[in-house]
Amino acid sequence: MFADKMILRIPGPTPIPARVQSAMNQPMIGHRSGKFSALFARTAERLKPYFGTKQDVYILAGSGTSALEMGVVNTLQPGDEAAILVSGAFGERFAKICERYGVIAHRLEVPWGEAITPELVEAFLQKKPQVKAVFATYCETSTGVENPIADLAKAIRTHSDALFIVDAVSNLGAVPCEMDAWGVDIVVTGSQKAFMLPTGLAFLAASERAWQVIEQNKSLAFYLDLKAYRKSLAEQTTPYTPAVSLIFGLAEVLDMLEEEGLPAIVKRHELMRDMTRAAMKALNIKLMAEDKYASTTVTSCDPAGVFHAEALRKMLTQQFNITIAGGQQHLKGKIFRIGHMGYCEPLDVLQVISAIEMSLHQIGAPVELGAGVKAAQEVLIAHV
Amino acid sequence: MFADKMILRIPGPTPIPARVQSAMNQPMIGHRSGKFSALFARTAERLKPYFGTKQDVYILAGSGTSALEMGVVNTLQPGDEAAILVSGAFGERFAKICERYGVIAHRLEVPWGEAITPELVEAFLQKKPQVKAVFATYCETSTGVENPIADLAKAIRTHSDALFIVDAVSNLGAVPCEMDAWGVDIVVTGSQKAFMLPTGLAFLAASERAWQVIEQNKSLAFYLDLKAYRKSLAEQTTPYTPAVSLIFGLAEVLDMLEEEGLPAIVKRHELMRDMTRAAMKALNIKLMAEDKYASTTVTSCDPAGVFHAEALRKMLTQQFNITIAGGQQHLKGKIFRIGHMGYCEPLDVLQVISAIEMSLHQIGAPVELGAGVKAAQEVLIAHV
Repeated sequence: MFADKMILRIPGPTPIPARVQSAMNQPMIGHRSGKFSALFARTAERLKPYFGTKQDVYILAGSGTSALEMGVVNTLQPGDEAAILVSGAFGERFAKICERYGVIAHRLEVPWGEAITPELVEAFLQKKPQVKAVFATYCETSTGVENPIADLAKAIRTHSDALFIVDAVSNLGAVPCEMDAWGVDIVVTGSQKAFMLPTGLAFLAASERAWQVIEQNKSLAFYLDLKAYRKSLAEQTTPYTPAVSLIFGLAEVLDMLEEEGLPAIVKRHELMRDMTRAAMKALNIKLMAEDKYASTTVTSCDPAGVFHAEALRKMLTQQFNITIAGGQQHLKGKIFRIGHMGYCEPLDVLQVISAIEMSLHQIGAPVELGAGVKAAQEVLIAHV
Repeated sequence: MFADKMILRIPGPTPIPARVQSAMNQPMIGHRSGKFSALFARTAERLKPYFGTKQDVYILAGSGTSALEMGVVNTLQPGDEAAILVSGAFGERFAKICERYGVIAHRLEVPWGEAITPELVEAFLQKKPQVKAVFATYCETSTGVENPIADLAKAIRTHSDALFIVDAVSNLGAVPCEMDAWGVDIVVTGSQKAFMLPTGLAFLAASERAWQVIEQNKSLAFYLDLKAYRKSLAEQTTPYTPAVSLIFGLAEVLDMLEEEGLPAIVKRHELMRDMTRAAMKALNIKLMAEDKYASTTVTSCDPAGVFHAEALRKMLTQQFNITIAGGQQHLKGKIFRIGHMGYCEPLDVLQVISAIEMSLHQIGAPVELGAGVKAAQEVLIAHV
């Protein structure tokens, strides 16, 4: 095996394209220079289509969690009530952040592997009209479930004045997102998923409705104070030191995304999802999410009683230098998750499926070699 | 001019060595993988000597400001009183962060260009024994003043039980820092200064005394909750997604720093400071800081009444592709600041001085060509 041919098929970080690596290697420039300001403002502008918004998009040096926190500390005050739609580990994170700041977090939970339905939210909001914000996860990375954000937004808008705040960290850029049209108030995402960058940046956009609340509130935190970012972006800059080399890379990523075009990018990801799911079904491996709510970017599989997920993962790494993800929290060691997003194409999906088949054979699990690949090929051929 | 030969002589970000760029180009790996965990834990361990501590050093994806905020939200509660030693823009930032969280911030201010003295702090602490933390800036980047941290620590330890929290963003790695021996409780710094990395990482270490307070406090923020970082580092990981490519770069930086050795690094920076100051004196350009409190990493000059700082900066960029910094806040447009840290050596200082001389000539300012270079050469020759 070539050590530098390591194949990363986890739900983020995702592989970095060579041209993005090169772009990040440009000589460092001052972040208060005119050259950087122009690049920064243009780059922020170019992010808007992926959010489906005319609003400004803010770029933060930090992880996805820092952006989730940004969504909380600017819109709520201690004692406010919020509804958290929890379908896995990342929904729960929103609840924990709210509680840290004294926000009353009402968790609307579904079992891991299921999606949040509009009915669940409607019933709750009718009982609790005082709720000021509803938090949801677009792609629940821990389970491979894509929550129906457009439908949830419609239900919330119909029954409440609450802000609707969405974590789209693990799928924005790979899925449709029409923040303005759907009536979503805040969308946050990260750099290391569909945006094909290293970890270290997060992006956030807020609606006019959200800005009315944000402008009235004193932000509960300092580094994450959105008003400071708005004031600075109007001057083509950032309130605190931006991650310059990652911004260089982001500009190159946006070139790549624009060359392919968002509709084609979404179709490519849907195709990779469908290929992966067809393969797993052909291999008789249980999928955690129903087809209807299946994530476009990550597929979770539950091999309970048939083989050990960790044995498969270990064999994939040892024999083929391929990394897939395991489970999180109570699913740790029990499931495996295949990332298919970012710098990844249908042939890469065939590759990981073939390696999974061979690894299953090696660990003594029941497998018909080639069956998963064939099912995925059939999906791909029907598409091209 | 070659566009890629742009010369960055600002007090951060600083130029990135080619071998560090290459290290950051390694293929992305999962941040929850064993390979990354081992690298991360080893890299955090290797940061300790630059802090002068046996305590763990925490690595954060964020700007220096996020690390300043980390120093506040883990040690104080709303209503607590803190003393902020303000000698410029970055001292004031600590005060603003405190106030955001309801901490009562007592500002002990000196005019910009002067240093904080132990006497000032002693007198205040005797009047206000209830102060729970004292915040200081090691290098006040906005003025080029290095505050006497060891002496301040001694004064605080003698007269108070307050924690002593130090912003060393713009000089750690280039100056002596003996956190444990001096009795400093928290030191924070950033990646883009003496550590020769792109912007995007911050580092923090805390004393046993600080940990006793931190463990008792509920952190006022979530992403910046130090207890979560401590728990994760014990498991060789981070609570939230780390900036993987910057950690690759940091490991390479630490190789470079260890090859040169900290004593030699400190001497190199002191030499570059002395060369720069000798040159400015020879050119009759007023230095903002006294020799005794002159920053090792950035020199601030005040050309009031002789020439316009911004005209010099513009000419340097246009003719020589060299960037130096201007003033901040009320000094914007009035002063200029020369960075001499990180991937910068004495010959680079001679280069920037010669370009400053020629630019002064071009803008019609009084200058004897070569006079500054000669003075700096004499300092260098006496040293080698």
